[in-house]
Amino acid sequence: MSKIQRIGVLTGGGDCPGLNAVLRGLVKTAAYDHDIQVVGFLDGFAGVLKDRTMRLDGDTVSGILQRGGTILGSSNRDNPFRVPVQVEGERKFEDRSEEAMRIFDRYGLQLLVVVGGDGSLSIALELARKGMPVIGIPKTIDNDLAATDVSFGFDTALTTATEALDKLHTTAQSHHRIMVLEVMGRYAGWIALEAGVAGGGDVILVPEIPFRIESVVGAIKERTFRGRTFTLIVIAEGAKAEGGEVVVSKVVADSTDSIRLGGVGHWLAAELEQRLEREVRVTVLGHLQRGGTPTAFDRILGTRYGVHAAHCAAEGRKEIMVSLQGTEVTEVPLADAVREPRRVAPDSQIVRAARSVGTRFGDE
Amino acid sequence: MSKIQRIGVLTGGGDCPGLNAVLRGLVKTAAYDHDIQVVGFLDGFAGVLKDRTMRLDGDTVSGILQRGGTILGSSNRDNPFRVPVQVEGERKFEDRSEEAMRIFDRYGLQLLVVVGGDGSLSIALELARKGMPVIGIPKTIDNDLAATDVSFGFDTALTTATEALDKLHTTAQSHHRIMVLEVMGRYAGWIALEAGVAGGGDVILVPEIPFRIESVVGAIKERTFRGRTFTLIVIAEGAKAEGGEVVVSKVVADSTDSIRLGGVGHWLAAELEQRLEREVRVTVLGHLQRGGTPTAFDRILGTRYGVHAAHCAAEGRKEIMVSLQGTEVTEVPLADAVREPRRVAPDSQIVRAARSVGTRFGDE
Amino acid sequence: MSKIQRIGVLTGGGDCPGLNAVLRGLVKTAAYDHDIQVVGFLDGFAGVLKDRTMRLDGDTVSGILQRGGTILGSSNRDNPFRVPVQVEGERKFEDRSEEAMRIFDRYGLQLLVVVGGDGSLSIALELARKGMPVIGIPKTIDNDLAATDVSFGFDTALTTATEALDKLHTTAQSHHRIMVLEVMGRYAGWIALEAGVAGGGDVILVPEIPFRIESVVGAIKERTFRGRTFTLIVIAEGAKAEGGEVVVSKVVADSTDSIRLGGVGHWLAAELEQRLEREVRVTVLGHLQRGGTPTAFDRILGTRYGVHAAHCAAEGRKEIMVSLQGTEVTEVPLADAVREPRRVAPDSQIVRAARSVGTRFGDE
Amino acid sequence: MSKIQRIGVLTGGGDCPGLNAVLRGLVKTAAYDHDIQVVGFLDGFAGVLKDRTMRLDGDTVSGILQRGGTILGSSNRDNPFRVPVQVEGERKFEDRSEEAMRIFDRYGLQLLVVVGGDGSLSIALELARKGMPVIGIPKTIDNDLAATDVSFGFDTALTTATEALDKLHTTAQSHHRIMVLEVMGRYAGWIALEAGVAGGGDVILVPEIPFRIESVVGAIKERTFRGRTFTLIVIAEGAKAEGGEVVVSKVVADSTDSIRLGGVGHWLAAELEQRLEREVRVTVLGHLQRGGTPTAFDRILGTRYGVHAAHCAAEGRKEIMVSLQGTEVTEVPLADAVREPRRVAPDSQIVRAARSVGTRFGDE
Repeated sequence: MSKIQRIGVLTGGGDCPGLNAVLRGLVKTAAYDHDIQVVGFLDGFAGVLKDRTMRLDGDTVSGILQRGGTILGSSNRDNPFRVPVQVEGERKFEDRSEEAMRIFDRYGLQLLVVVGGDGSLSIALELARKGMPVIGIPKTIDNDLAATDVSFGFDTALTTATEALDKLHTTAQSHHRIMVLEVMGRYAGWIALEAGVAGGGDVILVPEIPFRIESVVGAIKERTFRGRTFTLIVIAEGAKAEGGEVVVSKVVADSTDSIRLGGVGHWLAAELEQRLEREVRVTVLGHLQRGGTPTAFDRILGTRYGVHAAHCAAEGRKEIMVSLQGTEVTEVPLADAVREPRRVAPDSQIVRAARSVGTRFGDE
Repeated sequence: MSKIQRIGVLTGGGDCPGLNAVLRGLVKTAAYDHDIQVVGFLDGFAGVLKDRTMRLDGDTVSGILQRGGTILGSSNRDNPFRVPVQVEGERKFEDRSEEAMRIFDRYGLQLLVVVGGDGSLSIALELARKGMPVIGIPKTIDNDLAATDVSFGFDTALTTATEALDKLHTTAQSHHRIMVLEVMGRYAGWIALEAGVAGGGDVILVPEIPFRIESVVGAIKERTFRGRTFTLIVIAEGAKAEGGEVVVSKVVADSTDSIRLGGVGHWLAAELEQRLEREVRVTVLGHLQRGGTPTAFDRILGTRYGVHAAHCAAEGRKEIMVSLQGTEVTEVPLADAVREPRRVAPDSQIVRAARSVGTRFGDE
Repeated sequence: MSKIQRIGVLTGGGDCPGLNAVLRGLVKTAAYDHDIQVVGFLDGFAGVLKDRTMRLDGDTVSGILQRGGTILGSSNRDNPFRVPVQVEGERKFEDRSEEAMRIFDRYGLQLLVVVGGDGSLSIALELARKGMPVIGIPKTIDNDLAATDVSFGFDTALTTATEALDKLHTTAQSHHRIMVLEVMGRYAGWIALEAGVAGGGDVILVPEIPFRIESVVGAIKERTFRGRTFTLIVIAEGAKAEGGEVVVSKVVADSTDSIRLGGVGHWLAAELEQRLEREVRVTVLGHLQRGGTPTAFDRILGTRYGVHAAHCAAEGRKEIMVSLQGTEVTEVPLADAVREPRRVAPDSQIVRAARSVGTRFGDE
Repeated sequence: MSKIQRIGVLTGGGDCPGLNAVLRGLVKTAAYDHDIQVVGFLDGFAGVLKDRTMRLDGDTVSGILQRGGTILGSSNRDNPFRVPVQVEGERKFEDRSEEAMRIFDRYGLQLLVVVGGDGSLSIALELARKGMPVIGIPKTIDNDLAATDVSFGFDTALTTATEALDKLHTTAQSHHRIMVLEVMGRYAGWIALEAGVAGGGDVILVPEIPFRIESVVGAIKERTFRGRTFTLIVIAEGAKAEGGEVVVSKVVADSTDSIRLGGVGHWLAAELEQRLEREVRVTVLGHLQRGGTPTAFDRILGTRYGVHAAHCAAEGRKEIMVSLQGTEVTEVPLADAVREPRRVAPDSQIVRAARSVGTRFGDE
């Protein structure tokens, strides 16, 4: 193996606090410790396809540690293996991965570091199989990648959701209200679960534990019976009611048009209002959970991921993903990384702990 | 006038950070400076009707300054002049104000301090006209009472909304998104306006300035043309589109039932998605704005209101509302307090300042 | 008067959250509303003397609203009328204001906007008297300029100090401690006073109300007697003990050298430890109070100041300072601005309110 | 073993955010899952000696999850094996552990849960050896207990220190200053190290890596040479300069008296001012790091510790300490818990990562 002298990096998929910490760690270590140049592709794989790049060095990444977002920009969709095109008025998909390979070569890159979630890492693996050396850095706000103990961004999202619960708590208590907080988590309920435990949520609803609306109603009634006049419910956007109850998120805006309006939080609130004849208030955090200054934890983890990836790059490693195991950052095969998602196990220690302090999951 | 020895207090209407600061200021001053006993009615006027009270003294109000909510509880609805009753299966309203007067007398109270907004202060005025001595303390998260320069709670709500915008800002920028933040303000747009100025909102939509959806679309397109790939929109829940466009917030959940789902923020997002063919994300802060630890400003103002009301009470004043005028807390006639709401003037200095830094109001 | 086409701006003196909001408001309004170019001098008056500038336009000031500090940099010392020089081994001062005038002319500037406190505004006034058209924007973390109701930066400093008190509160209470929080305020005690009221400080010590150490000891003993096992003391760095007690802030580091170590907070703690035979803990916030993201209030006020100064500049106004009066931003003569500081009046309404809720000022 | 029906709990040592979460988790689980009664001793071991207790049940611990401090109170000193007494004018120590055993028996307790650090857990172990069944829960803000991966409270302290660095960052940069932040850590530098990494500290000084003042001076000069006009230094209170340099923290207040004034932060600042002829500003966080609302992480960990301890208690376990291993809470022998402190290894991965991004440790 010849000495590594020039690598590329991109950030792909949804936003995640700590991306800039990763970039800073990677670029500083590459430059200072290993004299490696770094080229950043703009807006994820879109930058590779459209040849849009920026040079990254110690100065470029100075002062970005605290900032949310990513200085490289990102994009959720662009996949070199499936580029949408119009062919005779029809929308089709084209494989342009060869073009990506050429651009990668044109810059004289010896490695591509992909910071991304499930989707971006799968593309990275496909590129690897075509011969592009790649290293992955796991990024998921939902903390649902099995190949790492924790991923950066989750702690910030959890903090935002917990602070929201804290605010709802005082006002729910004073005004005897039922409050619903809808948080992220389409397939994995970690944010809802952990924010619920941290914020003292009375009911936590996650995708992994199907709930019955009657059980939620029962939990509220039981609280009322014990003199608790308020109830805080945390619901993951992907939570599902048992037994075929349809979670509706479509609406007829006028007599002819159908548009998206509200989500499972609003649906739950409406259901509870009908059944309990009490007002229910909804807060939908949405992208608030993806934004803002990363927490100390996420900045440290992001920095360590970036530093470690730079060392691995310098050693000529490839087809790996950096990963936190216990308190050390190490590596796993990239192929392992995208295999199975990490989901909330209904009988896990933390779920049982939540039940022990009185939290309900709507499955009782 | 005989010496004031015993007064009552209640907190009415929606939650508002700083209520506990008011109670602490009132009770400590009454007790320490004037040797006045204070009886707190629970859950607003409901406590008066149902005779539910708690004794308040220096110890009771110790350590509550920082807490959101109100230790007395509140209620949005209970009006002694309009108590809902079932008469022969029909819902009617009864005037039970005489009962309220009796309970007030039974406790030997010489004054009732009502901490509340428009609604609660109107009831207070009616009770005053029946002979109950009352003092009002203004409480409105929307900052829409004309008889005071500022009211407590607004600064906290503004801070929560601004922090939300900050979080959306970094992620919108990195991911080139259109983000909609829906904030409180059914009739007055102060939270949307000031949070929009503080958080650099690109478009601010308030009830006082009817907007055209085409104008919002135009503002986004113009930004794109100038190379800004993201747009932050702050919309007050009561903002209205011009020219009869119906803001829909109802939905057919299944073929038979109609339930509330989403609000103007979701509606706007859906409209923009259709017209721009871009994804639009929505955050609905909801009761987050009413909760949580009050800001320093709100604790100071709340404390000063409470202290001043206690002094006024000791002097035998009545039918007044305490009020901030410039930097001093003073009083205005209670009747003035509930006359006209303070709304955003479309040509006010702050709206013009927002336009000067490039913010659009959807009316251009 | 010919049309204003090009102006300069500098930020002088100590740091103050909101400076970037001012610059953004000024530059955007100058550019968009009045087609005025803006030249920024770097590091306060040092930039004028050393001819170091940067061009400011809409893009330069984009995205800086939320950031602490100032993109122009600042400096506490550089005064064109008193530049230190070495003359035959001796340190002397030279008047280089003519040079400043020449540089101002060389850039073709028609006005200089000075964002600064007492010191910088005094220099601005001197330059005005030499014929340079200037407009001042008040900046003081201490809120001690009499010519404006409030100045930006204070609310952020107050918030930082109040959050510190909140943190000390819980731990003081659980551990029965005496805690001293030293905050900024060399001549004016606004931060200590308002943070003390907002955070429930038991004792507040400010420069304007000389304290006796025995009175502080007495207040703590009285609290103990009433069963309060902890005491929170907020002390402004410029607070002074009555009657010639020397506040020592020097130390003998070893037998030969004398260096600065600790301040009035540490001194007070040491005195109290001796007299009460209890441990006392000190926190010195220092420059924490000058840093960080400005609050919503400070961003709005800073923006409005900047916008207003740009309008005034376009109208050819000079020798004025922008100023908040009630809820409107207006102007006052620059000469008035630097006349008298705004200090805490011992019998002001807010001091009396603090006493009413039980706070002691060490003068009882 | 007979069924466990009644246990005691105390919180000992310095304050630590999350103590209330532990108590809530313990008490709710004991009550709801195992029907065990819980007696709380007030102010640590002082409560055992002085027989001061409070009954803890589901209601008592409701709503305390978010609060800093401990509802039981704590105390740093009281050790049943070494109670200070005055014998003929002299201060001696008495072993009153028998009394502690009697009080424990008098309440009919079958187990004592001790939430504490090194000191309190050592006492617990001694009591265990006298026959009192005990379970320990690790509590250390410094994160220096080797027998658990992480302990609650650390994340909150880290967050407070990181937020302080963030604030200093903007102002240091704008004003070209050297800033010193003194944080906790007498023997272990975890807070300084991790806050330094999270906040982008340029120099980190910890007890485990002795520093030379010349090396720190060199790092600052090198930064200046590279055009960085500011430097952020994080120093643990227990950091030590190499080679016999005395860290002075005493002062002559007047000609006769010697009192404590300032610490290592003030000392370092004074040294740097002398050597660099530049002003250096100091912030001493002090007990700020022990106070305030715990972070989500600390609330979750505290809750899980409390829940797990209750389950262990119900099973009749004793002489163990609960402990986080990876992502699971489990137990270790109590004797192991107090053996070796966990300290920063100078060649650990995180220290090396910090060096890779350019941070200096004063040992170069």
